[in-house]
Amino acid sequence: MKEAHGVRVVVLGAGFGGLTFCQAFRHPSATITLVDRTNHHLFQPLLYQVATAGLSAPEIAAPIRSIFSDRPDVTVLMDDVQSIDLDGRTVKLGHATLPYDYLVMALGGVTSYFGHPEWERHAPGLKSLDDAVRIRREVLLAFEQAENSTDPELRRELTSMVVVGGGPTGVELAGAFAELSRTVLARDFRRMDPTQAHVVLVEAGPRILGHLPESLSESARRQLEALGVEVLVNTKVRDLREREVEFENGRVLRAANILWAAGVGGSPLARQLGAELDRAGRVKVLSDLSLSGRPEVFAIGDMALVTGLDGRPVPGVSPAAMQMARHVASTISEELGSPGGRHAARTAFKYWDKGTMATIGRSAAVAKVGALELTGFPAWLAWLGVHLVFLIGFRNRAAVLLQWMYSYFAYKRGARIIFGNTSES
Amino acid sequence: MKEAHGVRVVVLGAGFGGLTFCQAFRHPSATITLVDRTNHHLFQPLLYQVATAGLSAPEIAAPIRSIFSDRPDVTVLMDDVQSIDLDGRTVKLGHATLPYDYLVMALGGVTSYFGHPEWERHAPGLKSLDDAVRIRREVLLAFEQAENSTDPELRRELTSMVVVGGGPTGVELAGAFAELSRTVLARDFRRMDPTQAHVVLVEAGPRILGHLPESLSESARRQLEALGVEVLVNTKVRDLREREVEFENGRVLRAANILWAAGVGGSPLARQLGAELDRAGRVKVLSDLSLSGRPEVFAIGDMALVTGLDGRPVPGVSPAAMQMARHVASTISEELGSPGGRHAARTAFKYWDKGTMATIGRSAAVAKVGALELTGFPAWLAWLGVHLVFLIGFRNRAAVLLQWMYSYFAYKRGARIIFGNTSES
Repeated sequence: MKEAHGVRVVVLGAGFGGLTFCQAFRHPSATITLVDRTNHHLFQPLLYQVATAGLSAPEIAAPIRSIFSDRPDVTVLMDDVQSIDLDGRTVKLGHATLPYDYLVMALGGVTSYFGHPEWERHAPGLKSLDDAVRIRREVLLAFEQAENSTDPELRRELTSMVVVGGGPTGVELAGAFAELSRTVLARDFRRMDPTQAHVVLVEAGPRILGHLPESLSESARRQLEALGVEVLVNTKVRDLREREVEFENGRVLRAANILWAAGVGGSPLARQLGAELDRAGRVKVLSDLSLSGRPEVFAIGDMALVTGLDGRPVPGVSPAAMQMARHVASTISEELGSPGGRHAARTAFKYWDKGTMATIGRSAAVAKVGALELTGFPAWLAWLGVHLVFLIGFRNRAAVLLQWMYSYFAYKRGARIIFGNTSES
Repeated sequence: MKEAHGVRVVVLGAGFGGLTFCQAFRHPSATITLVDRTNHHLFQPLLYQVATAGLSAPEIAAPIRSIFSDRPDVTVLMDDVQSIDLDGRTVKLGHATLPYDYLVMALGGVTSYFGHPEWERHAPGLKSLDDAVRIRREVLLAFEQAENSTDPELRRELTSMVVVGGGPTGVELAGAFAELSRTVLARDFRRMDPTQAHVVLVEAGPRILGHLPESLSESARRQLEALGVEVLVNTKVRDLREREVEFENGRVLRAANILWAAGVGGSPLARQLGAELDRAGRVKVLSDLSLSGRPEVFAIGDMALVTGLDGRPVPGVSPAAMQMARHVASTISEELGSPGGRHAARTAFKYWDKGTMATIGRSAAVAKVGALELTGFPAWLAWLGVHLVFLIGFRNRAAVLLQWMYSYFAYKRGARIIFGNTSES
């Protein structure tokens, strides 16, 4: 098998970090084995668009194999990572055990319920295509059930949605759902009025999008409220039950759909490593992104805790993961090329903040690029532009653009299709 | 509620028949209630494209509500039909009971296993988006498992596929799967060779595409074999077991994926009607498509047995369903308009055969239009043209065309994404 020849590089995870590493690293004497639980690379930033019926699942996913079909040095395995033996330098998968000379861990994170795993049943997170398609199905089904119901109480519950967490994902979900009910579904029902749908965005901190300047948080709140979203700040969740959320201030909301966008935790595998973790479960790495005492093992992306030049941790965003991936790729390349041999003095990773943005709805968004702060339509255009550029390499970029244009001008959402195991709901 | 005013028309099923009726029928004193189990109209002829990863599910489905959002006289209900009371003139749904003045039944058919319902577990049929997405997932997963396996026996089984039934659906599935393995996946695997995948098409009769002239059946067989499909005619299935099919000639094939495209049976509801059914479970209707003794009840599409002018039954194809729908629409319109009142002398339905075609793969197909017989690329172009025209009204026609162009020129398949409850597999 290929990975038995030359320098064996094993990459765990085909997210932005793992994928970018494989694209950036290429060496005549090295072979790469890329392992992922799924068969596709997921364009995470648009996952909420699948959950809100704007895009279909395959439009934001690319088969990993086809991305590397022209790279005979890359072997792709769809398998689960069972455990990592750092001393033995092997990774145990469901179907095989892979020895490695270099290990690049890019396993991302998981939805964290802050010590309340039992809440997951009542408030799913949004991490995978399965999550997105399930959420879409549940929300659309709830509206159909509301149309079939004559009980106003039940209708209210069926058309209510609570999004927990005021970060970018929460803001994008709340905005998109409000828009879906206010504009897209508005004319489609005869008995109930979708514009009466109740969308609530809940944030524990003093403001939403806390990572952005206050002026942008404020603008985002105004834009959300203009869409009919009820924004609650300084509001902590005390308990989650079936179709019911209870806040610490005692208020109780009933809603058929409660979504969790509050916390990201580290990969469960990170705990096995014996490496130092932070509260969020991220692996503390050295400035070269390797594990302390393990120069052949790197952690990148959401699962890695790196401190930027400003002393603050590098945010868990895709540009950061891609920058880390390129840094590790050049580090390994240099070592394989240098006569000085392995693990010579390495350069430290530097994060370049390209800016951050969040979209709220049709021509509504906020963006910070360097010192520049954008809101409303200009921010939305910037957001659209950036995402389309990032989508390069996705065969369906044109189709995605087409869908957006359509949704934008026709006020419709193309992927409003209910399928999948509806008995679940 | 709307359907309580004026003449109440209830339509069951939003396939080609039900949908076309609602589009063709409109009367100031009438309201329509359209009931379907799902929330979308499905473009059945392209369902095999979803199963073979050529298209994504939403690309061949349109939300029923959005199709009629400009028709306040049409109420859409997503619900199950429990029973039909012909004497009481009511339809019992899961959430309501609908009284009707006219009933148009367009419930289509179900996959029939010729008295072997237990075979369904081992050989799923292709009727819904769920079926298509499940088949796609199972086939792609089998290839991934083959790549993970070192046992040649198991690999052979995992990359083998049996399609039972040599009609258009079976031919299209076998051809598309052969193409998928021969061309699309060919360069994507490192350990196993997808081009060795074994695709078998099984037909009980003496030739495939029995409804077409022999010359076209012969051409279809040659085109399939050119793609590497093993075509077995005069071959009956004796038994189906987990990953195993046994023929009456004693031959046994092991295959991870066995698909059933052999039989279409009538809707289970048809049996409740007490009307006369044929062997396939279709409802025998009068020349005006109404039930004998029930002038206010019509059956159209795949669930109706109508005899054409040539004395042969009208085939269960979408053009026939749409023609029946328009006939019933004009019949009811005339009656609502005529002072003579209800159920005056009605005109008989005449089926106009527009020709039939089947696609086999990339630029491979057979078509019969009137006296004209086409094969190969010309037939494929005709097929493409006809389907794109039929897709009119589907918002995503452009996107679908785009996907096809892409698949055609890049030899790739866009929707090769594995998601959904993979624990099933």
